[in-house]
Amino acid sequence: MASIEVSNKQVILKDYVTGVPKESDMLIKCTKLPLQLKDGAQDILVKNLYLSCDPYMRGRMKNIASYFTAPFTPGLVINGHGISKVVISNHPEFKQGDLVAGFTGWEEYSIIPEGRGMRKILHTDVPISYYIGALGLPGHTAYIGFFKVSSPKPGETVYISAAAGAVGQLVGQFAKLHGCYVVGSAGSKEKVDLLKNRLGFDDAFNYKEEPDLNAALKRYLPNGIDIYFENVGGDMLEAVLENMNIFGRIAVCGMISQYNLEQGKGIKNLSQIIIRRIKMEGFLEPDYAKTYPEFVEKVKGYIKEGKIVCMEDITDGLENAPAAFVGLFHGKNIGKQIVRICDDK
Amino acid sequence: MASIEVSNKQVILKDYVTGVPKESDMLIKCTKLPLQLKDGAQDILVKNLYLSCDPYMRGRMKNIASYFTAPFTPGLVINGHGISKVVISNHPEFKQGDLVAGFTGWEEYSIIPEGRGMRKILHTDVPISYYIGALGLPGHTAYIGFFKVSSPKPGETVYISAAAGAVGQLVGQFAKLHGCYVVGSAGSKEKVDLLKNRLGFDDAFNYKEEPDLNAALKRYLPNGIDIYFENVGGDMLEAVLENMNIFGRIAVCGMISQYNLEQGKGIKNLSQIIIRRIKMEGFLEPDYAKTYPEFVEKVKGYIKEGKIVCMEDITDGLENAPAAFVGLFHGKNIGKQIVRICDDK
Repeated sequence: MASIEVSNKQVILKDYVTGVPKESDMLIKCTKLPLQLKDGAQDILVKNLYLSCDPYMRGRMKNIASYFTAPFTPGLVINGHGISKVVISNHPEFKQGDLVAGFTGWEEYSIIPEGRGMRKILHTDVPISYYIGALGLPGHTAYIGFFKVSSPKPGETVYISAAAGAVGQLVGQFAKLHGCYVVGSAGSKEKVDLLKNRLGFDDAFNYKEEPDLNAALKRYLPNGIDIYFENVGGDMLEAVLENMNIFGRIAVCGMISQYNLEQGKGIKNLSQIIIRRIKMEGFLEPDYAKTYPEFVEKVKGYIKEGKIVCMEDITDGLENAPAAFVGLFHGKNIGKQIVRICDDK
Repeated sequence: MASIEVSNKQVILKDYVTGVPKESDMLIKCTKLPLQLKDGAQDILVKNLYLSCDPYMRGRMKNIASYFTAPFTPGLVINGHGISKVVISNHPEFKQGDLVAGFTGWEEYSIIPEGRGMRKILHTDVPISYYIGALGLPGHTAYIGFFKVSSPKPGETVYISAAAGAVGQLVGQFAKLHGCYVVGSAGSKEKVDLLKNRLGFDDAFNYKEEPDLNAALKRYLPNGIDIYFENVGGDMLEAVLENMNIFGRIAVCGMISQYNLEQGKGIKNLSQIIIRRIKMEGFLEPDYAKTYPEFVEKVKGYIKEGKIVCMEDITDGLENAPAAFVGLFHGKNIGKQIVRICDDK
């Protein structure tokens, strides 16, 4: 049977990347896709609407298999989290027109084998792009890292690095709702203003203007840090270790300052972990699938009640996806970096 | 009223120490002490029998106030854990002849203000020196670090550095009793033999003979490490991070390789904490006073049933205490390093 063929632009990884990713590490390829599915499998064909740019994707551009995700394949399309609309479905759980969130390709149309990794979006009373932001991977990451990993108590001090990022901005807002004193750092005046004036942080500073991070932390958190939400690693971690309170907790979500280095910066003061009895714990969102329903219900409630502000940084057009992704490593985005391929209307 | 005066040799810290401690950092001073107590305070005067040499004491030789203990004072007597016998008591809980364990001076006789930090030894059905070893600070440290901090499960793999030390040897034996697979490392063939042949470790190796610690760990623990009991820090920690299993735990008890450095070795691969979802926790024995009774009852039982072997390295004579202490940093002791001043008979 003849089927309609559509043009299908794709973002291709040219080769494994060393150092800071550049736009030229990716290329835009124009391909064609017949709008049909092969018989016998419960695949779905989706039109991609929004793509998520996440720092962890940098790791997949190295030729190193990790414990939680495989490297991208040079010459093939990049994939990641996205919001899509079902065009054709051979899967009983999905039907044409359904909005879905999950793993998809950086391309206009994708075939999702067996619909794997896709979740139906049931409630569209919030912007659907939130399902890759505050209600998606970054939101759930913030939720787990703060409520499950950090054992927070009202009145404690919370410090968040990369606080204007997709995860950090939510951690800070969760911490405020929990009754904590919250300080964040970011890399521009604009972001610092955002943290203080829009997102309700008690205080915030521009780490680029602080020659001595240790002194800066002592100034902004004179009572020390009970909970550090770690997004950056390196020098910041070293300074934080000198400012943790006894029995403090460090939720290790990311170390973005280290991702592009061939060899990480050496942390010299880990003996503070003993002296201050610090608990430091790394975590990954996919391990916490069980808490997703609880999280989405609670946080959607906060959003609808106006208790949480979701900052998105939306770039239009698939062809601009490489620049949007690269921008993550230059601190360009304010809030969740999203690529809008097309609207869902 | 005239009182008897006794000679009272003391170990004095000459000055704050940089680098590896040397015998010449301390001196032996002959003083005299009247065997009497001033009226009006509930002090006790004790004769010291055994002193404990502990690596943490190195930290007190620096002029840095820490969160858990104050620096020694140059020109004054060193203090630490010991076993003593009450000579005179103005305290209702202690009487002449009582054996006590707790904080005392590195000298023949000490006056303990208000008897503070002293615990009566009630059961002498095990050698009393065990109360500064398997039943004292090192034993309780091993107990907490393994059972309370590491959340061990039978069948898991446990790796212990400085495994022939006072704490390490007990962690390994607790782990074996708990049904774990236990590997230790130490710095001599004699210690490795001890671990394998006397203390029941499943395997052990001499780290000084391993040019590539990462490769050594892969060879001795081909299934990875579920629990690492950290006593040394530095290169060993870096190698361990490359060999931890997902959801592994690191109980950070000490980092003896770092204590004498002006600046610690930089650990470059902390991002493994995220990738492998590692929980790393520092702990100190004084925080766990509540578990002491449970610990001492359980472990004394193990000792009497012959389920646990207590290795002591006893140096005779207070004048040899500086050499015994310094030996800790050259790996000289096998098992708990103790100084016997005199017997309790």
